[in-house]
Amino acid sequence: MVDPDCIFCKIAGGEIDAEMVHEEEDIVAFKDINGQAPTHVLVIPRSHVPNLEAMADLPDSVAKRLLEVSSEVAGKLGVDQSGYAVRINNGPDAGQEVFHLHLHVLGGRKLGMP
Amino acid sequence: MVDPDCIFCKIAGGEIDAEMVHEEEDIVAFKDINGQAPTHVLVIPRSHVPNLEAMADLPDSVAKRLLEVSSEVAGKLGVDQSGYAVRINNGPDAGQEVFHLHLHVLGGRKLGMP
Repeated sequence: MVDPDCIFCKIAGGEIDAEMVHEEEDIVAFKDINGQAPTHVLVIPRSHVPNLEAMADLPDSVAKRLLEVSSEVAGKLGVDQSGYAVRINNGPDAGQEVFHLHLHVLGGRKLGMP
Repeated sequence: MVDPDCIFCKIAGGEIDAEMVHEEEDIVAFKDINGQAPTHVLVIPRSHVPNLEAMADLPDSVAKRLLEVSSEVAGKLGVDQSGYAVRINNGPDAGQEVFHLHLHVLGGRKLGMP
């Protein structure tokens, strides 16, 4: 499903440009436009899933690939050995801004707990 | 698979006590002993998977359940509306301490990016 008003659906669909890091059938990964670490990539399902509460809408294989692609992106960008954090912000206290599920992959510096 | 030297395998197996929040066939969730937020729970697969690079060893359904259980735990502990972050630390820069894959569920306060 695609939400025509969702910026991440538009990025996944190629309507809005982003610096793509990885693309496959059900998932894309692109650089965060407001990068908060030397490496800061967002991994998203192409399908519009607003948050973790809506995970049931994703096939099991796509859910797993979100985690695997996060790891693969870290390897591709050379932070797999130095280390990286994968973070999902869900709701107000976590500062979720775009209501299309996305995994932040952060690396390239020390990453304290929030 | 279980690693007899792994503290999280021992918690999942009941050999070491922890404050359990959720238990199911392939996954357990328990309170972090060094909680860094009012709500701080760890969600782990019972099977010993050291990190995201070893995701291939987990069935798709268990990978998805790790994310779903994180959301369910947030609901159970009453931070689903206020918001929460799910974080996986992978490797040195992220401060990974236990080499058994675990998802931190953090809530109950504002959670800035690391």
